[in-house]
Amino acid sequence: MHILITGAAGFLGQRLVGQLIARGQLDGRAIERLTLVDQLAPPVPETSSKEANSTIRAININTRACDITAPDAWASLLDDRPEVIYHLAAVVSSAAEADLELGMAVNFDATRALLDACRERQMNTTRLVMASSVAVYGGELPEVLDDMTALVPQSSYGTQKAMCELLISDYSRRGLIDGRVLRLPTIVIRPGRPNAAASSFASSILREPLNDEEAICPVPTELELYVMSPGKVVEALVHGAEVEAERFGANRAFMLPGITVSVAEMLEVLRHYAGDAAVERVRHEPDGRVTAIVASWPGRFRTARAEQLGFAGDTDFKAVVEAFIDEARPS
Amino acid sequence: MHILITGAAGFLGQRLVGQLIARGQLDGRAIERLTLVDQLAPPVPETSSKEANSTIRAININTRACDITAPDAWASLLDDRPEVIYHLAAVVSSAAEADLELGMAVNFDATRALLDACRERQMNTTRLVMASSVAVYGGELPEVLDDMTALVPQSSYGTQKAMCELLISDYSRRGLIDGRVLRLPTIVIRPGRPNAAASSFASSILREPLNDEEAICPVPTELELYVMSPGKVVEALVHGAEVEAERFGANRAFMLPGITVSVAEMLEVLRHYAGDAAVERVRHEPDGRVTAIVASWPGRFRTARAEQLGFAGDTDFKAVVEAFIDEARPS
Repeated sequence: MHILITGAAGFLGQRLVGQLIARGQLDGRAIERLTLVDQLAPPVPETSSKEANSTIRAININTRACDITAPDAWASLLDDRPEVIYHLAAVVSSAAEADLELGMAVNFDATRALLDACRERQMNTTRLVMASSVAVYGGELPEVLDDMTALVPQSSYGTQKAMCELLISDYSRRGLIDGRVLRLPTIVIRPGRPNAAASSFASSILREPLNDEEAICPVPTELELYVMSPGKVVEALVHGAEVEAERFGANRAFMLPGITVSVAEMLEVLRHYAGDAAVERVRHEPDGRVTAIVASWPGRFRTARAEQLGFAGDTDFKAVVEAFIDEARPS
Repeated sequence: MHILITGAAGFLGQRLVGQLIARGQLDGRAIERLTLVDQLAPPVPETSSKEANSTIRAININTRACDITAPDAWASLLDDRPEVIYHLAAVVSSAAEADLELGMAVNFDATRALLDACRERQMNTTRLVMASSVAVYGGELPEVLDDMTALVPQSSYGTQKAMCELLISDYSRRGLIDGRVLRLPTIVIRPGRPNAAASSFASSILREPLNDEEAICPVPTELELYVMSPGKVVEALVHGAEVEAERFGANRAFMLPGITVSVAEMLEVLRHYAGDAAVERVRHEPDGRVTAIVASWPGRFRTARAEQLGFAGDTDFKAVVEAFIDEARPS
């Protein structure tokens, strides 16, 4: 099997590549080839186990630097007809808000060009797995959202993702491609450093104290988030390519099963694993701007479709933190 | 005031133009100029009243044949900076389903080009009124839909309209344009002859018997439709340009208030106005294909947003039929 991954240099892309190499197979078929695409040629993630190192030698891995907005970008990537495409490349929300043309070009036009390039090559059974986002939701939301809640995005990023969802569902309905769009919850705990994203604190208030560093919590502790661990997101991406096409109904886009957790609950789990001292490393400095953005994100979902299709989330927030601690531990 | 109307040669376009000429004003300002655009230069509808005939002489009416998918189409149309744009031009659903490129080009790309052309000219306060459709809905629908029901279109036409809705809401949120998208119910009674549209029977089973002709009803009489008369649709289009921008919330697209009526109820109203003989002119010839399409359309809505914004539907189905009879009567 030949798998193409865009955005392969990103945090999720790298973890997905690592997972695919470690598995060595997808949907019961051996992975023979991986094409990793990003603006700069993506690194091949290091794998720790012996098993993965023997797998990696059996897989033909190509890394490609490619501007997916270039006119013929997809032609050269698709001429070898990958059987699964993970389309993770995107301009993030703050950048898409700052530059409408850039967001439209990368988030929408490049996806449409990908769909049309697949169509030209009659890649009707190619499984296209795209990452969408909780940012497609907004406006006056019900307390608990479900699979029939309207998309009223309040950002250009959310708008562009929602338009891609519609197009992928239509191309799939027409039998031109086999698309699957997974709306990702807020990913916690992300590795790395705090960044400018409004959601940055959600990882920071756990990650930094666990590393004996200080963190700032800009939101009230009763605020609820809808979260998923990086490990479960990657599992969902893998599963997204394995679900049989017949099991999707009228719509190819759906929310993944996250868990609802308040900031207070997150801090109690931190206390459980790292003690009072860790919790005291979190300084509470309310920021109205960040709170307004984060409070506008839905915190509760009934994700019946995803569960019906076999997608699984984290069991509880303890497991989320435990997974992070386990990964950080030198093996 | 200068008003531009695309699709001005169509059934709705012609009625809207007639209404605007008869009113002579929009949003309290005299209409000085009308630019009527369609693939072929649209006719200027005949107006019956003396008042309208004096108005028509005061309005500078330009009719233009224009392919709105041509690269510079909007440049020549927008250089005079119309203050209100009615964007009614579209490829209908069966044609958009038969030809994906054509539907994307006319229904989506031309709308996007219109938005970008407005943006380039900083026409931020231009009121853009676009017609969308009940075809944006589909999939597993609740019995009664409301303003927060997800759009799961089951046609490329519905997909393209839903994408335009998202884009217009985003451009409006960014302050680049002042957009308003009205989702139209099934329009009953349309003038003219039966056509290939699945909804054709809904007008035909009333119009033909009222004209002493036979009609075919291809659906079970208990089937419910969500309908609006042509007169109320045109009133809604006029009102759509008059609502103050501040009154729209997070979303610029909403369903207009139709009325729910079963085919049996429609036929009883026909009996009321035209007697048993008229109802007997309707032959019942069930057609599974037509029934499947029509039954997939939602029949019941709570249209709270439209009502809050002052949009009004028909009072009851008798009024719908009565309006048709009144119009047909020689004046």
